[in-house]
Amino acid sequence: MAEANLTIIRDSTARAREADSPRSPVVHFGSDRPLRLDAGVELSPFQIAYQTYGKLDANRANAVMVCHALTGDQHVANVHPVTGKPGWWETMVGPGRPIDTDRYFVISANVIGSCMGTSGPSSTNPATGKPWGLAFPVVTVRDMVNAQAMLLDHLGIESLFAVAGGSLGGMQVLQWTASYPQRVFAALPIATGTRHSAQNIAFHEVGRQAVMADPEWRGGRYLLEHTNPRRGLAVARMGAHITYLSDAALHRKFGRKFQDRSNPTFSFDADFEVESYLRHQGSSFVERFDANSYLYLTRAMDYFDLAADYGGVLARAFKDTPTRFCVISFTSDWLFPTSESRAIVHALNAGGARVSFAEITTDKGHDAFLLDEPELFAIVRGFLDAAGKARGLNGKP
Amino acid sequence: MAEANLTIIRDSTARAREADSPRSPVVHFGSDRPLRLDAGVELSPFQIAYQTYGKLDANRANAVMVCHALTGDQHVANVHPVTGKPGWWETMVGPGRPIDTDRYFVISANVIGSCMGTSGPSSTNPATGKPWGLAFPVVTVRDMVNAQAMLLDHLGIESLFAVAGGSLGGMQVLQWTASYPQRVFAALPIATGTRHSAQNIAFHEVGRQAVMADPEWRGGRYLLEHTNPRRGLAVARMGAHITYLSDAALHRKFGRKFQDRSNPTFSFDADFEVESYLRHQGSSFVERFDANSYLYLTRAMDYFDLAADYGGVLARAFKDTPTRFCVISFTSDWLFPTSESRAIVHALNAGGARVSFAEITTDKGHDAFLLDEPELFAIVRGFLDAAGKARGLNGKP
Repeated sequence: MAEANLTIIRDSTARAREADSPRSPVVHFGSDRPLRLDAGVELSPFQIAYQTYGKLDANRANAVMVCHALTGDQHVANVHPVTGKPGWWETMVGPGRPIDTDRYFVISANVIGSCMGTSGPSSTNPATGKPWGLAFPVVTVRDMVNAQAMLLDHLGIESLFAVAGGSLGGMQVLQWTASYPQRVFAALPIATGTRHSAQNIAFHEVGRQAVMADPEWRGGRYLLEHTNPRRGLAVARMGAHITYLSDAALHRKFGRKFQDRSNPTFSFDADFEVESYLRHQGSSFVERFDANSYLYLTRAMDYFDLAADYGGVLARAFKDTPTRFCVISFTSDWLFPTSESRAIVHALNAGGARVSFAEITTDKGHDAFLLDEPELFAIVRGFLDAAGKARGLNGKP
Repeated sequence: MAEANLTIIRDSTARAREADSPRSPVVHFGSDRPLRLDAGVELSPFQIAYQTYGKLDANRANAVMVCHALTGDQHVANVHPVTGKPGWWETMVGPGRPIDTDRYFVISANVIGSCMGTSGPSSTNPATGKPWGLAFPVVTVRDMVNAQAMLLDHLGIESLFAVAGGSLGGMQVLQWTASYPQRVFAALPIATGTRHSAQNIAFHEVGRQAVMADPEWRGGRYLLEHTNPRRGLAVARMGAHITYLSDAALHRKFGRKFQDRSNPTFSFDADFEVESYLRHQGSSFVERFDANSYLYLTRAMDYFDLAADYGGVLARAFKDTPTRFCVISFTSDWLFPTSESRAIVHALNAGGARVSFAEITTDKGHDAFLLDEPELFAIVRGFLDAAGKARGLNGKP
């Protein structure tokens, strides 16, 4: 952690430097340790940027992997080096928090394909000395998890006490339990599903088309050509952001309230507060995220279909799993509705797994997993406490 | 009707000509008959393009106004002059159809702000001889209805037997009954609401931003500068199209099926059928619709708030209404969910109005009003039959 001496940078050139030289620990994997991708190619050399919080105990038994969502990163519980904002899960992870860094050793790695220091399309391609762009191979959720497993090997951690995450992070949690059942004692897949629905793929495709429609995208070569498809990426983010909330939350927060006035302007200005809010979401996002990474990570989510890797039978993905699960969904999440979580629970039940399930009542939509949800905190804390006792963790590391 | 000798044109220049010289009847309103707009300005001169089907009876009592939705037009039941496709409501309107042109005289007018022959941003501004572009005043649903009332005056029709429409068309139906209660005997608002929700405004704003982000939009001056913001408009249409369907319908039609292959390509091609379908929706739309009209008509929907014009009390909009209503919603419509229709029904009940209400079970989403829905057809037919008896219509005109 380098919280104290972080300098906040806000322009996208500086943000792009973060891709190669992140302000967090980095592991370089040389040509002797390639990452074998689902696309059938090897990524080598490559690097993983990560953060850790807390201390690993003497038995190396208290490690918790936190997996981030689409536009998240390894900066779970420290000031973000680009935005200067708090870590994205500071309400969940930290001293005395549900994922308690006084008790657990928390690891979070930027996923393969992202843009905060782990190899991705905005990283420098070592073969050419130039940004990868679309020459970077298309990656999958399994590739992300395999890379994290290599990071664990590097850190000398054989097995995780727990793995937790929401949305794309939850997909990684599920993939962890399927790919490495012996390495995961407890799993917390939150607001997620085992496959992306047609509607979710459709929304992602609109976002990708918005990026690719921007002439500044330049076929993905914008870093080389010193352009930036910020308008296209902003539109993509605005559209996606609607899907992270709920109709009820938008109504409660904004309704039909006008921005700074009491009557319509009869123009295309942001008359309504909700328009102004969305425009802000779009413009602030482009300062911190890479457009090509947005394409790669949405694609990875679309491709995710855990059952497909097991002959279409989801229960086989979890067959004889030793992992104990806590599956959590939110009533107003229409991106990953509760029915998706129930499908996970049914598949786990079919395999006789230890599983508890909670549907949390909230109007905050999909983003509820990132927000101040006391019931979520209580459930995560309680589940980890019980799992810690079963694991023989003794409170303090 | 000029069905037989329509030549199909497919390029956008030819489509743009349709704005001034449509291949349907046109009424020109000179400077003596301005349209007073909610924006506080007068539109003058202006024109309305329309179609009619069937014959007006001797009492001029059998006229039915069909109001079109956002991207619809006056070509309800004839081959479309630009796309060559059947009219958008041929399943509903025609000889022997629920809105039976053997019995009723059907009128449909292109709305103010659209692009198929009624004055809008792609029309020639008579003051400059050049396309209006963003100099065209922002219009409202009430403006659309007031223009239609002027068309009725021109046609010598004092009162409508019925007015029917879905979505934006349904908003016009509601506005008709509020603005001209004495001129509407029966009203059929379908898949609509009395105001646009925050979420709906948000989706529209994303679409507008997609159009305006396209450098070929040129601040709305693309017709003058011979460009065309087709990519931005296609993205807008793709996003909107998702909201017209339902999660269940997308799952049933496409699921996670790959397009023309059995495995992913690990690229950004349209791997999934749903991607390919959406791209087609986007690219075909730009051939037939004007980007600025898309801005104007989405804005009109966002501004619509019928209760706001009556002190926030919806029931006052329908106070002492002589009109009989049939309100129809669809179970899977998440753009205008049944709760919106129930709010209309409650307001009508509060005023003691004659109202029947049907919620039709379907997985087809908002677009169900345009599709083959036998229950919808039966309800419309039955309601109009009963209203016709009450009106004293005697079958054949």
